[in-house]
Amino acid sequence: MENKITAELVQELKGITGEDWVVADLSQMQSYLYDETELLIRPVAAEECVVVKPGTAEEVSAIVKLANEHLIPIVPRGGGTGICGAAIPTQSSIVLSLERLNRLVEYDEKNIMITVEAGVTLEGLLEELKEHDKIFFPVHPGDEGAQIGGMVAENAGGVRAVKHGIMRNHIKGLEVVLPTGELVQLGGKLIKNNMGYDLLHMMIGSEGTLGIVTKATLKLYAKNPCIGTLLVSFDSIEEASDVVPMILQEGITPLAIEYMDREVAIEAAKHIGQPYPAKNGSADLMFILDEATEDELYEKCGRIVEMCEENGAVDSLIAETTKDQRALLEIRSNVYTAYKENVADALDIAVPAGSVPDILKDINRIAKKYNTTSPAVGHIADGNVHNFLMLENGELPEYLDEIRNEMYEAAISYGGTVTAEHGTGKTRKKHMPLQFSPREIEIMENIKKVFDPNGILNPGTIVD
Amino acid sequence: MENKITAELVQELKGITGEDWVVADLSQMQSYLYDETELLIRPVAAEECVVVKPGTAEEVSAIVKLANEHLIPIVPRGGGTGICGAAIPTQSSIVLSLERLNRLVEYDEKNIMITVEAGVTLEGLLEELKEHDKIFFPVHPGDEGAQIGGMVAENAGGVRAVKHGIMRNHIKGLEVVLPTGELVQLGGKLIKNNMGYDLLHMMIGSEGTLGIVTKATLKLYAKNPCIGTLLVSFDSIEEASDVVPMILQEGITPLAIEYMDREVAIEAAKHIGQPYPAKNGSADLMFILDEATEDELYEKCGRIVEMCEENGAVDSLIAETTKDQRALLEIRSNVYTAYKENVADALDIAVPAGSVPDILKDINRIAKKYNTTSPAVGHIADGNVHNFLMLENGELPEYLDEIRNEMYEAAISYGGTVTAEHGTGKTRKKHMPLQFSPREIEIMENIKKVFDPNGILNPGTIVD
Repeated sequence: MENKITAELVQELKGITGEDWVVADLSQMQSYLYDETELLIRPVAAEECVVVKPGTAEEVSAIVKLANEHLIPIVPRGGGTGICGAAIPTQSSIVLSLERLNRLVEYDEKNIMITVEAGVTLEGLLEELKEHDKIFFPVHPGDEGAQIGGMVAENAGGVRAVKHGIMRNHIKGLEVVLPTGELVQLGGKLIKNNMGYDLLHMMIGSEGTLGIVTKATLKLYAKNPCIGTLLVSFDSIEEASDVVPMILQEGITPLAIEYMDREVAIEAAKHIGQPYPAKNGSADLMFILDEATEDELYEKCGRIVEMCEENGAVDSLIAETTKDQRALLEIRSNVYTAYKENVADALDIAVPAGSVPDILKDINRIAKKYNTTSPAVGHIADGNVHNFLMLENGELPEYLDEIRNEMYEAAISYGGTVTAEHGTGKTRKKHMPLQFSPREIEIMENIKKVFDPNGILNPGTIVD
Repeated sequence: MENKITAELVQELKGITGEDWVVADLSQMQSYLYDETELLIRPVAAEECVVVKPGTAEEVSAIVKLANEHLIPIVPRGGGTGICGAAIPTQSSIVLSLERLNRLVEYDEKNIMITVEAGVTLEGLLEELKEHDKIFFPVHPGDEGAQIGGMVAENAGGVRAVKHGIMRNHIKGLEVVLPTGELVQLGGKLIKNNMGYDLLHMMIGSEGTLGIVTKATLKLYAKNPCIGTLLVSFDSIEEASDVVPMILQEGITPLAIEYMDREVAIEAAKHIGQPYPAKNGSADLMFILDEATEDELYEKCGRIVEMCEENGAVDSLIAETTKDQRALLEIRSNVYTAYKENVADALDIAVPAGSVPDILKDINRIAKKYNTTSPAVGHIADGNVHNFLMLENGELPEYLDEIRNEMYEAAISYGGTVTAEHGTGKTRKKHMPLQFSPREIEIMENIKKVFDPNGILNPGTIVD
């Protein structure tokens, strides 16, 4: 690829979007070059870039066609909240920010779906939905600055996957600019659709390498008004883990079931200057339930506590007031911030849910081998563990690659995956051969070429 | 492609599976050459075929490698219950029946998943699950002779999609023999998995053209023991349709919501010698609910009736006994059989659920134009309408292509699809350009080439 941002290209971009929406001055584009990947492991952004902010899908299409003529890469950019470097331009690129595509297209009451442009943030979507008090959208990856287009591209997850699953389950239709510039509609307001190969699902989670999402149609759900939060303490992760499938099989499906190691929970509470409410035990499960009525909520909370106690729980606590609930959730949300300064890399392994105790033991064992610790929390019912690899004296430890690989190999030995919800991006691409056979990688590389023969879109992400 | 079944090839196949599992005599393979596609529109099977019944995934892999050497097509075959000709070998082919891969691999209680070989029938799966009384598998496309591998390949739907969605939502892992012979594991017992491109979802619904499924891991769910069936009558399809999203937004999610035109319902009842229970009105909704307790069931049924009555319902009937419920469901299941003898083609359109009244009106209008009728039923909450194009004096009407195209174009004008749950196969492939742009079709054709460079697997299905 030529990879050169010429004055002529900048002029042509301005011709598409208007002068005001092209930024060619490096000092003004810093906030467009990085995402939230940990500082010391994030890829270095190329300095010679140009940022363009199209206002319509047609402008996106024109920019993509221009990039194909000049053979210049395009890196699509949403809220920049990703943590796998997918949005970092590692070659001289056109950074295409979707921020101006931030309109509500349609709230469709009859089909219980909403269509928004890609640059609408999760916060904006939730704000919009406040007008419809019976309805909600379930996926919540934590940072409400995430844009819907980015959440599609990264197939976002989050804590609420237990009941409602991940982004993929709720995306019914997409408007996408293909890497060759054509504007296409994938899927639609359809619950069933079996015509042809499913390009909609191919696009979801493809991290801006197979197309640029410009609009998304999302399925919405009836909102359960009664929310409750439970904290149940056990003496061991095994006991805590074993009770999870029992609860699900009982027909109780919480919004979220989170696991916190006690040490981690105390650290997070300390970080925000709160006492940690549980005293007994060493491993905590946090349940968030949403039910249609107060009665159902109390009945289900009661049944969960009962089942936990029958299976070794040593303490339990129901947060009844909104204030108490918020205090608990705040502790969970601050686990990462409590450790952040000292984190080299935050992993995103998933294993079958029943193997969570095993992988946590493996993580501890492997950490010990390298004379370090690796604090962990987990979306336990999803089998999704986030553990931290720590800095040593503020620097990346020499053994970082080795310790990470050992943990990945452990996860894969249980049939797990290197990344559950954060994405492959540019930082985890090198681990692809741990998880896939050469033929699978070859197929993925060739699928990329089918969509993007010139390799324009987000090169270096997922595949070469 | 050479396309010749030589004696040498037959010998080599016998070398892989053993003598007993290769059928080369045409008179003995008739039941392997067709599926359930309507007789007069189904593609004609090539006569020079050989049927092979491998006993392991490794044998499947060896057969695929052999087919690549000889450049002979392979048509994978499940239960043969499909209705789009996907399993009909239209060129001289190796028909690869999965029937001997019919073992339960694992019931995994901790992960609430089951792994079965591809040739296990839906009936066999349900039988297996009887041992686990708290658990169920939701997808039910009607014919329990369907094999799980076929249900994966066709992304099966059915009436229960309202609450639980289609096959795609429940497939977590697949073992697949690629068209080039490699045996790969896609996905796993994972709720979240974002590594690489999602080949699992690409495989689902690819109708035996991108790989041969040999094993599937399916998510299971807690069973709600209390089942109820409701029949509510309206004076018009509009009124019936409008009440559906109101119910869903209320937080009531039935297993199924079926629409039946009264004439159709009466015809079906007559066919099985039953009286039809509803008298008033002309358009019926049938609700099937499953709830955790009797109280919840009655409360929700009551609320549905109340909402329907507020919105124009003229009659309602709760089937309380198992016998009454069965009688109602029997009528719904016999709609197709009641008309079957006179059906040229049964369509499988889907539109956004809110557009069901419009598409039903269009179907009537178009039928009238051709001086015929087109009886319809629908999975109304899924927007999935099945209407029949009738034979004329036992023959395909001359206008069949035209009337069908008009109906497809009407569906597509609402953002709909030609096939919701029955698949593209060989009969609907020719309609692909109605729904997709040339670039989308080109991408699909090239994806096929990526997986299957020699065009071995199920040629003529979905793409050329």
